[in-house]
Amino acid sequence: MKSLVDCIHCYLKQAVSCMEMINVPDEKKVEVLYSLMDFIKTLEPSASPAYNSSLVLLKTYEFINNSDPYYEAKKSSNKLALELYPKLKEKVSRASDALYEALKASVAGNVIDLGIQRDFNIDKELEHAFDFGFWIDDYPLLREKIERGKNVVVIGDNAGEIVFDKILVEILNEIGKSVYYIVKAGPVLNDATKEDAEEVSMSKIANVIESGAALLGIPKDFVSEQVKNLISTADVIISKGQANFETVDDFEDVQANVFYLLKIKCEYLAKKLKFKQGSLVLINGEKLKERKEKYLLK
Amino acid sequence: MKSLVDCIHCYLKQAVSCMEMINVPDEKKVEVLYSLMDFIKTLEPSASPAYNSSLVLLKTYEFINNSDPYYEAKKSSNKLALELYPKLKEKVSRASDALYEALKASVAGNVIDLGIQRDFNIDKELEHAFDFGFWIDDYPLLREKIERGKNVVVIGDNAGEIVFDKILVEILNEIGKSVYYIVKAGPVLNDATKEDAEEVSMSKIANVIESGAALLGIPKDFVSEQVKNLISTADVIISKGQANFETVDDFEDVQANVFYLLKIKCEYLAKKLKFKQGSLVLINGEKLKERKEKYLLK
Repeated sequence: MKSLVDCIHCYLKQAVSCMEMINVPDEKKVEVLYSLMDFIKTLEPSASPAYNSSLVLLKTYEFINNSDPYYEAKKSSNKLALELYPKLKEKVSRASDALYEALKASVAGNVIDLGIQRDFNIDKELEHAFDFGFWIDDYPLLREKIERGKNVVVIGDNAGEIVFDKILVEILNEIGKSVYYIVKAGPVLNDATKEDAEEVSMSKIANVIESGAALLGIPKDFVSEQVKNLISTADVIISKGQANFETVDDFEDVQANVFYLLKIKCEYLAKKLKFKQGSLVLINGEKLKERKEKYLLK
Repeated sequence: MKSLVDCIHCYLKQAVSCMEMINVPDEKKVEVLYSLMDFIKTLEPSASPAYNSSLVLLKTYEFINNSDPYYEAKKSSNKLALELYPKLKEKVSRASDALYEALKASVAGNVIDLGIQRDFNIDKELEHAFDFGFWIDDYPLLREKIERGKNVVVIGDNAGEIVFDKILVEILNEIGKSVYYIVKAGPVLNDATKEDAEEVSMSKIANVIESGAALLGIPKDFVSEQVKNLISTADVIISKGQANFETVDDFEDVQANVFYLLKIKCEYLAKKLKFKQGSLVLINGEKLKERKEKYLLK
């Protein structure tokens, strides 16, 4: 998906958030923003927001001389989510359709995103996810595909969120599916890496695979051959969060098997694609493709 | 008030909003944003957000070759507000404390701001203003100052909003006060100018005075001597909206007579000053000064 004009100021906003993570002094923040402005001009406008954001973030890391400013934030997100896990797990297990409730728990985890929004209220978000469910809900189709398939690929998103995804993976295991869980190959924003997967014991219940790139999302040109094969041959792909939402469309041929599970956080993208901002969606790739062709591509 | 680090990306966001007003094509928008990035680097970081925003906006006007991109938006804001006027006026007149209700109507009008937030819901905002009132409420002090004083200066903000201010001015007239209403000397954002004041007949009930500058807020170094004198000698000054909030503190000596009436729209400023974002406030200048000294100045 191509970047929007409004992404440009958001790259800088994200850089400020990033620098606040490690308390960079204001004068230095301004200096870095000015340097980033020159860097932003070198970006390819037709690249995805996720890809361009990644480049701006990694450039920020260079400027502030820190290879993982979100390290502590990721640790505390995992810790917080692990505390919430037992109660959530119980709630999901008790449900008449545990898979459906597990998807809701997983999407609620998507709010734990320190990249753009700096504050979040987990309890409120969980309540909202369970009470209101999905604004677009392709669950019947997903359920059917999962029942017929063997392998499910979950494309992970953030640290913290990965704990909520565990509940989903456990339910998938219980109904006899083997799960591949994709994490980032290196630190970028607060995205889950192999270290997070081990910390929260995701590695014990899923085949944890690194994306092959320390970039947000799954940009086809940059991820490993293994990941490309995995996505191209999976029976079902569950794509978490916005950066994956912006890049998994690179895999055009398999959109029928892709289900995007996320909270629509970006006001501009929401407006362009006629999504309700802040809503939770579980949308099949084909339907998203139609939406993009109708509203986005020109 | 000094600009914040987060103002930097907001200047660009505001420029995008501005260009959307007259449907500048996306390619041109990007070109303008890149040029603005160089311009932003020349700004004085210790200047107020309102002043720096003004310079960025006026530079945007140059780049897009349009001296008043908000012209149509201002017209339609005035029109919309004039339609709401009779019902509101009646509601205020019926109240047991009409002055207090008029201040609420006036602050509700502050939501009509197309500069940063592109969408607004007037009915909801009006309901909120009347039902919840002010999060900080220095009305008793304001009432006392008004009763003791003769001249009230209202520092206006946006087009549309100026209609809601009319109700306030009419109530002030009814209790025997003469009102000076300050508008901008030229088009900047959607701020009210003399043309707006005439269009909505503010000129018939108040002495409408131009600020002396086509700049947001009332930056002391740039407004006319007349306006400086007016503010320095007024018994009561009611300052509407955020740009005035950011600049009227230039007039240090008269803060005891200033009352800031606005909706706190900026999330960063809200966080810095420990205001609840989105809340309506009626705060005396001395109290605001204390708040700034406690949380902002370092």
